[in-house]
Amino acid sequence: MQRALDYANARRPAELEDLVRLCRQPSVSATGHGVPETAALVAEMMKEAGLATRILERAGAHPVVLGSWDGHRSRTVVFYNHYDVQPPEPLDEWQSEPFAPEVREGKLYARGVSDNKGDLVARLEAIKAYLAAEGGLPVNVKFIVEGEEEIGSVHLHQYVQDSEDFLKGDIVVWEGGERDARGALEMQLGCKGLVYIELVVRGAVTDLHSSLAAIVPNPAWRLHQVLACLKDPATDRVLVEGFYDRVRAPSPAEEELLVRFPIDEDTYRRELGLNSFIGNLTGLELSKKLLYQPTCNIAGLVSGYTGPGSKTVLPKEARAKLDFRLVPDQDADDILRRVRLHIARCGFSDVEVLVHGVENPSQTPVDHPAVPVMVETARTTYGAEPVVQPRFAGTGPMALFTRIGLPSINGPGVGYYASRAHAPNENIRVQDYYLGIEHVIRFLDAYAQTRA
Amino acid sequence: MQRALDYANARRPAELEDLVRLCRQPSVSATGHGVPETAALVAEMMKEAGLATRILERAGAHPVVLGSWDGHRSRTVVFYNHYDVQPPEPLDEWQSEPFAPEVREGKLYARGVSDNKGDLVARLEAIKAYLAAEGGLPVNVKFIVEGEEEIGSVHLHQYVQDSEDFLKGDIVVWEGGERDARGALEMQLGCKGLVYIELVVRGAVTDLHSSLAAIVPNPAWRLHQVLACLKDPATDRVLVEGFYDRVRAPSPAEEELLVRFPIDEDTYRRELGLNSFIGNLTGLELSKKLLYQPTCNIAGLVSGYTGPGSKTVLPKEARAKLDFRLVPDQDADDILRRVRLHIARCGFSDVEVLVHGVENPSQTPVDHPAVPVMVETARTTYGAEPVVQPRFAGTGPMALFTRIGLPSINGPGVGYYASRAHAPNENIRVQDYYLGIEHVIRFLDAYAQTRA
Repeated sequence: MQRALDYANARRPAELEDLVRLCRQPSVSATGHGVPETAALVAEMMKEAGLATRILERAGAHPVVLGSWDGHRSRTVVFYNHYDVQPPEPLDEWQSEPFAPEVREGKLYARGVSDNKGDLVARLEAIKAYLAAEGGLPVNVKFIVEGEEEIGSVHLHQYVQDSEDFLKGDIVVWEGGERDARGALEMQLGCKGLVYIELVVRGAVTDLHSSLAAIVPNPAWRLHQVLACLKDPATDRVLVEGFYDRVRAPSPAEEELLVRFPIDEDTYRRELGLNSFIGNLTGLELSKKLLYQPTCNIAGLVSGYTGPGSKTVLPKEARAKLDFRLVPDQDADDILRRVRLHIARCGFSDVEVLVHGVENPSQTPVDHPAVPVMVETARTTYGAEPVVQPRFAGTGPMALFTRIGLPSINGPGVGYYASRAHAPNENIRVQDYYLGIEHVIRFLDAYAQTRA
Repeated sequence: MQRALDYANARRPAELEDLVRLCRQPSVSATGHGVPETAALVAEMMKEAGLATRILERAGAHPVVLGSWDGHRSRTVVFYNHYDVQPPEPLDEWQSEPFAPEVREGKLYARGVSDNKGDLVARLEAIKAYLAAEGGLPVNVKFIVEGEEEIGSVHLHQYVQDSEDFLKGDIVVWEGGERDARGALEMQLGCKGLVYIELVVRGAVTDLHSSLAAIVPNPAWRLHQVLACLKDPATDRVLVEGFYDRVRAPSPAEEELLVRFPIDEDTYRRELGLNSFIGNLTGLELSKKLLYQPTCNIAGLVSGYTGPGSKTVLPKEARAKLDFRLVPDQDADDILRRVRLHIARCGFSDVEVLVHGVENPSQTPVDHPAVPVMVETARTTYGAEPVVQPRFAGTGPMALFTRIGLPSINGPGVGYYASRAHAPNENIRVQDYYLGIEHVIRFLDAYAQTRA
């Protein structure tokens, strides 16, 4: 293994160039911008790393890239990643172009560099180094890299179904962890689910002079009523009937992790420019709220005139994009059904509900044997005790893998607490990228030594 | 007077060309686009009509164009118009370019053609014809044409103050009436006031990944709470303390007009694509709501991601543009003060309140001597009994003229019930434009014969 580490360290400039190459390629799943080109590039980069590759396609779906190395080892590690990124808007808040990667003060700025092109390329670089230096890997390796993660992994369940034989293995290593303010790697053993909807409220056939507001219903006010029926912002409580029925409290082992690894509240608040969190929560209660409570978030609102100055218009339409983050054992389809039913029961059956994404939550047991391996190799790599979180607050399609017998663990990754995923000026620290490559090498080596 | 009418009718193609010329010139007061060029063009067209003209300017304000013809007559008519227009957005809903006037099926489409470039040019054409055919006008005439009507006539009070001597006269004829579905001209004797504000709610320093929604306050939800504190959409009732204190019910003479000239509900609903009006109101109650009740309208809403598909973002900011239409005897400054106070009392003193416009309501007595003259000449011109409305539901700076002793009456105009002012595909019927010119000629002639 030491040869692989030395080989990787000697190649750092080339490793950075590979990452820049992938980040330069736009791959916005929401709009489709650059998606097929990126899939082809990922397959090419996998081949360069020494993997056998295949691009899977389905009508109306973004392609999935598979990669594998089979040395008939006793352990098989599956890596899950995605090559798509969030839309880069608002563009005017970027200090450099989102798809023109730029290094400033030791940080690499680009849309997707943290979420999660950096993670993906770090893994490929680790494998490339290991193969070149040692002539083979200590475990069998498989990659499944999708292009729809940022739009709710719409077709991944079909791709996973199609590839069930290919995907046989011991564990799926998730897209990538981040380093906290103390420099420790944060690992997660599960994730939240998601229901992403868009509400469309319509009024008159056209925008009108707002003098008619005294007698013509305003869809923006009606949207406001629909929102009021969905959540009470004062208590941050979702009002959909049965919404909380299947919310599971942390197990004793999970709660122990929450106590052992509290949220770094001060750093968080300072970075976000906030005086306090919702409900003035702190400590364990804050952790529980973040990881064990579902949400109803307004991700977008638009109606009428949004330009500079004033326009006295009565809008013909109002729209809200809402994402609900779900926790075990909530079921995404069930929640979507309840939300629709609730909206109708509140008297808004005229409101159109568009569905942009549906994903289930997932939880890997805290005592899974891959956990201590990941902890130990992270400790060695970063020189700091890693933070093990029972789950993360975000969403990924882990549940699809749980269903085919693959527990998930989120470990090696290249982001950090201020990576600004989904936001302008997304970035990673270049040094973290190199450490991420080392961590993958160490993990593969150590995991090979566990008993099958 | 017959010579003037004949002269005008013989010039119809040239009259239409003059209107197209003004509509081709953008003049969006909200953005400033084309504003000084339009003021210069209006002055030029006034000169061509035979008026002495002057362009007034003030620092930071759009210019005002004055025009006059003085024949030492016993009566002086002041015309108020504006050369600015509403922003043309949403552009993709226009069937022809908003500033490339186009005649289709007898209608002229252009931003501002109805509100109110058509009215202004019709008046100038009437004067041009009268002067050319008769050698002089039967009354003294003055024009004050501003460029900020669509943004709340921000500086007009200063211009009016500066021009108080110039503006001496008997009556100010307002920007222009419209024909209803039966073909009758609608005249108004007053208008509503306006307070136009924009609420800005801020959250974290940047847009965030929406997984943080469980613990980080969302400004869009907070905006929703501010809106809930301002109005109850279920009852359409503004909740600001004291908001309704000075709302005056219609006088017996005003209510008589409401009864005599009911709203053409069916046409309205059909044109707007509505099943019913707010509160299922009909008849006299509908008229009273439209003309005698103030409003709180959402003119614009924006937060987070508003593009296609989904983006799981927690927005850093949320904005709402609100216009309150006020009725006599509400005072705009007083209402603005109350709204600010109410927002603070509801616990939202962190919310920024930008002010985009403040105007007072106005009411001319129903028994003013100009009323029967306007009625009679409208009846002759259109062959239908005109509709006299005590006020209109929209806003204009009438109150500034009331204050210097000039009562307002809204009469000759070229729009109709489906002119779509402030909306895409704004248009007038070309025939109405020619009739509007005739009406002005008849009004000037008849008003000259009233006793001074």
